[in-house]
Amino acid sequence: MKEYNKLEQAFKEIEVIQHVGGILNWDASVMMPALASESRGEQLAILTKIIYEKTLDDKLYQSILLASKNLSQLNAWQRANLRQMKRIVDHARAVPVELAVAKTKVANDCEMIWRQARSESKFKLVASKFKEMLSLEREIAQARSEHSKLSTYDSLLDLYDQGRKSKQVDTVFNKLIGFLPDFIDEVIENQAPEAKINGKYSSLQQKELGEFYMRTLGIDFTKTRLDISTHPFCGGNQNDIRITTRYDENNFLSGLMGIVHETGHALYESNLPKKMMYQPVGNSCGMSIHESQSLFVEMQICRSHEFLTHLSKNLPKYFKLKKKIKEDALYKNATKVKRSFIRVDADEVTYPLHVILRYQLEKKLINKELEVDDLPGAWNEMMKKFLKIKPTNDAKGCLQDIHWYCGTFGYFPCYTLGAIIAAQLMAKFKSEHKDFAHTIKSGNLKFITHWLTNKIHKFGSYYSPDELVEHATGEKLNPDHFIKHLKERYQS
Amino acid sequence: MKEYNKLEQAFKEIEVIQHVGGILNWDASVMMPALASESRGEQLAILTKIIYEKTLDDKLYQSILLASKNLSQLNAWQRANLRQMKRIVDHARAVPVELAVAKTKVANDCEMIWRQARSESKFKLVASKFKEMLSLEREIAQARSEHSKLSTYDSLLDLYDQGRKSKQVDTVFNKLIGFLPDFIDEVIENQAPEAKINGKYSSLQQKELGEFYMRTLGIDFTKTRLDISTHPFCGGNQNDIRITTRYDENNFLSGLMGIVHETGHALYESNLPKKMMYQPVGNSCGMSIHESQSLFVEMQICRSHEFLTHLSKNLPKYFKLKKKIKEDALYKNATKVKRSFIRVDADEVTYPLHVILRYQLEKKLINKELEVDDLPGAWNEMMKKFLKIKPTNDAKGCLQDIHWYCGTFGYFPCYTLGAIIAAQLMAKFKSEHKDFAHTIKSGNLKFITHWLTNKIHKFGSYYSPDELVEHATGEKLNPDHFIKHLKERYQS
Repeated sequence: MKEYNKLEQAFKEIEVIQHVGGILNWDASVMMPALASESRGEQLAILTKIIYEKTLDDKLYQSILLASKNLSQLNAWQRANLRQMKRIVDHARAVPVELAVAKTKVANDCEMIWRQARSESKFKLVASKFKEMLSLEREIAQARSEHSKLSTYDSLLDLYDQGRKSKQVDTVFNKLIGFLPDFIDEVIENQAPEAKINGKYSSLQQKELGEFYMRTLGIDFTKTRLDISTHPFCGGNQNDIRITTRYDENNFLSGLMGIVHETGHALYESNLPKKMMYQPVGNSCGMSIHESQSLFVEMQICRSHEFLTHLSKNLPKYFKLKKKIKEDALYKNATKVKRSFIRVDADEVTYPLHVILRYQLEKKLINKELEVDDLPGAWNEMMKKFLKIKPTNDAKGCLQDIHWYCGTFGYFPCYTLGAIIAAQLMAKFKSEHKDFAHTIKSGNLKFITHWLTNKIHKFGSYYSPDELVEHATGEKLNPDHFIKHLKERYQS
Repeated sequence: MKEYNKLEQAFKEIEVIQHVGGILNWDASVMMPALASESRGEQLAILTKIIYEKTLDDKLYQSILLASKNLSQLNAWQRANLRQMKRIVDHARAVPVELAVAKTKVANDCEMIWRQARSESKFKLVASKFKEMLSLEREIAQARSEHSKLSTYDSLLDLYDQGRKSKQVDTVFNKLIGFLPDFIDEVIENQAPEAKINGKYSSLQQKELGEFYMRTLGIDFTKTRLDISTHPFCGGNQNDIRITTRYDENNFLSGLMGIVHETGHALYESNLPKKMMYQPVGNSCGMSIHESQSLFVEMQICRSHEFLTHLSKNLPKYFKLKKKIKEDALYKNATKVKRSFIRVDADEVTYPLHVILRYQLEKKLINKELEVDDLPGAWNEMMKKFLKIKPTNDAKGCLQDIHWYCGTFGYFPCYTLGAIIAAQLMAKFKSEHKDFAHTIKSGNLKFITHWLTNKIHKFGSYYSPDELVEHATGEKLNPDHFIKHLKERYQS
C-alpha cells in the first residue's frame, strides 16, 4: 500500500507535466506569436525529457513490481491504475533510449520537410528523410514487439488503442470494404440535389451559435474555452478544456460541426472520473473510444434529422434571420456524400475507406512489404480501387496527412473504429430510450451526455477499449450497427 | 571548459522550465477558465519543485566549484554567466529545504486569507497567518544572512537587486524624504486645474492606439502579444513576450500609460543578449533596472510634453475625432499630482513616498523592530507624516499590496530605485542628444529604444545593477537627476 501510494505520487507528477504540455500545445496553436516557435520547441522538448526520465526511473519500475505482488491490498480502481502504470512504463522501457532519441530528432526534421513537400506537392523532397524515419520506426516496432510479444504493427496499434489487434481490425475493415464501394455508388446516384443553405454569417455569430450548442450538450464554460485554430482540436485537461474550430463565413455548418465534434471530445475529458484525476486510470481509454465520443456527438446526434430540426428552429435567433432555413435543406447539406481526395473533408460514408487505405499501407510499410518509393503509386492505386478516383497530385494523395511524417504509425484505424463504436453506442441508446427522436428534437441533449458519462466517460481507463464497449453496449465491437446506421440514413 | 559546458546545459533546462512557468502564469491571468485554477496550481508547484531539485543538485554545485577553478579558460561573458549561476545556486542553498517548503505553504494560505481580509478591510483576519509567515521569513532571512554575510534585510534585497545594500538605499531615500513632502505641497498648490480630455473610447480603439505606440517604440508583433488582465504585467520570454493592460472607456490615458509602461519591460526582455539566451547571464539585471526601463518609457518619454504633442496629433485618427485634443490638456492630465492612498494609482511625485514607507516598515518587520499587530498603526502614522493623509481603512492602508502577504520582502525599493535610474538615464540621453525634444516630438522613438538597448538591454546581467548604471551613465546611482526631473516637470 505504501508502495502503491508512492506510485500515485510519482504518476501525479508525470500527469501534471503532461497537462502543462497540453496547455503549451494549445497556446502554440491558438495564441503564440509566430517567432516564439523555436522557444516553444525547447520547452516541449524539456518537458518530454523530464517525463521520459521520470517514467524510466528504475525505482519507479521496482515500485510497480513490488506493488503488483500485493494486489490484495488494493481496491479495484487501484489495481486498474496499477495496470495502467505498468502499461505506461512497459511502453517506455520497450524502446532503447538512443533509438527513441534518434527517432524524435529525425521525426522533427521529417515533419519540417514534409510541410515543404506538401506545399509543393513533391513527394521526392521528403522521400529520403522519410526512409530514414521509417527505418528507425521499423526498428522501434521490432523492439516493442520483442518486449510485448505482439506483432510489430500491433505493438504500435497498442500505443493508441490498448489491446487492439490487427487481426480484429482486418475482420471489421474487410466487412466495410465488402459493403462500402457499392453502397457509395448507390448513395451518390440516388441522393437528392444539394439545397443551398449558406448565407454569410460572421465568425462572431457562428461562435455564439456554437457556444449555445456546447452549453446545450452540457459544456461548463467555467472550465472550458472555445477558440480558433487552423485545425480544430480539443486540448487541455479535465478542469481546463480548450477546444478550437475554424469558421467559414460562407459555410456555417462546417464550423458548427467542427465545434460539436470537439465538444464530444471535451465532454469525455470533462466527465472522466474525478477521484482518479492525475492518475493514469483517470485518463481516457485511448483513441478509438475518444473518437467514438466526438463522432457520437457529431455524426449520431448533430447530423441527425432530429438535431437539424432543433437547429432550424434556433438559427433565426442566432443569425437574425427573418425566415427559417428548413430542416430538410440542413439535412441534405449535413449528409451530402461525395468522393473526394482529402480525408479530413470527407463525409462519414466515404471516410472509412480513406482510413482503411492508410491502415493497409502503414501496416505494409512497418512490415517491410512496401517501400517508401512505391508509396505514392500504391496510394493512388488504392484510391482508385476504393473510391474510384485518382489523386491529381501527391498533396491530394499520400502527402496530405501529417501522421506518418511526424512518426505516428498505428493511429489511423482509431478514426473508423471510433465511428463504429459510436454507431454501436447509439443503437444501445435507442434501444434503451425509445423516445430518442423527441429527446434530440427537443434539445434535451444533456440527457444523452449524461447517458454517455454513465456508459463511457466515468470509467476512464478502468476497462480496456474492448471491455468498455462490451460493458456499455452488452456486445462485442460490431460493425453491423455502423452499416445499419449508414443504410438508414443514406438509403431512405 | 567541459565542466562549464555541462553547466550551460543544466542551466538551460532550468531557464526553459522558467519560461514554461511564465507562459502558464500569463495564461492563468489572461485566458484560463476560472475552475482551472486548482489544476494550474498543481502545475506551477511541480515546475517549482523541478527547478528547485535541479538547482540544489549536488553535482551542479560541484561543477560550479570546479569550473570556478579554471576561469582562465572562459571568456568574459562565460565568467559572468558562471557568477550568475553561482549566485542562483547560493541563494537556493542558503535556505534549508524544510524552511523553504514551510514558507511556500504558509505564504499560499496567507495570500488566500489576505484576499478575503482586503475585500472586507479587516486586518485582523490575516494577522495570525501573517505572523506565522513573518516568523518563517525572519528565519529565512537569518539563514540567508549567515550564508551571504549580508545583514538580514540586505540578504532579501539581494534577491531582487543584486548587490544592493540598505545603507545605500537609506542615503538615497533620505534625500527624497528631505525633498518630496514640501515639494508635493508646492506642486499641488500651484498646479493648473485639470483639463477634461476624456471622451468615451472603446477598448478596441484604445488597443489599436496602444499597438501603434508599441510598434513606434520598436515592438515586434511577431514575438509579442497585447492582452487584457486585471493587473497589467509583462510576462513570457525574449522570443515570446506577453504584455497586458486594462482599459477604462472613460479614461484612455490610463490604459495607454499602462501599455507603454509594460512596453518598457517588453523592450528590455526582447533586446536581451541573444547569444546568451537560456543562460542566467542572459536574463535581466534585476528588478530596479527592469523598473527603470518601464519608467523610462512611461515617465521620461510618454508623459513628456514632447510625446503628448505627438499623441495629440495621432488621436484624431485612432479615435475618429473631428478636432484635436490639445497637447496642453493631455499634459495637465498626464502630470496631475494628487495625495492618494493607493500606490498603484499614484503619480510619479507622490509614488516614492508610498515606496519608502513600505521599505522602512518591511525592514523593521524583518529586523524584529515592528510586530504584526502594530503594522496598521505604524502604516497610518507614516502616511500622515509623508503624505499628510490617513487611510480611512486598512484596505486603503497596509492591506492594499499583495507583496508581504505572499511572502515577498525586499522588493519594494526597486520601484523607486527604478524611477531614479530612469531619470539618470534620461539625463545622459539628453546630454548625448541635444535634439531629444525633436526626436520625441517627431515620434522617432525607435532611436531612443536603440540607445537603451546599447546602454542597458544588451548587457543582460553581465554587470551588477550598480555597475550597469555607472557603465551606462558615467556616474554612480544619483537621485539628483530624479529630483531635477521632478522640478523641471512640476515646478515650471
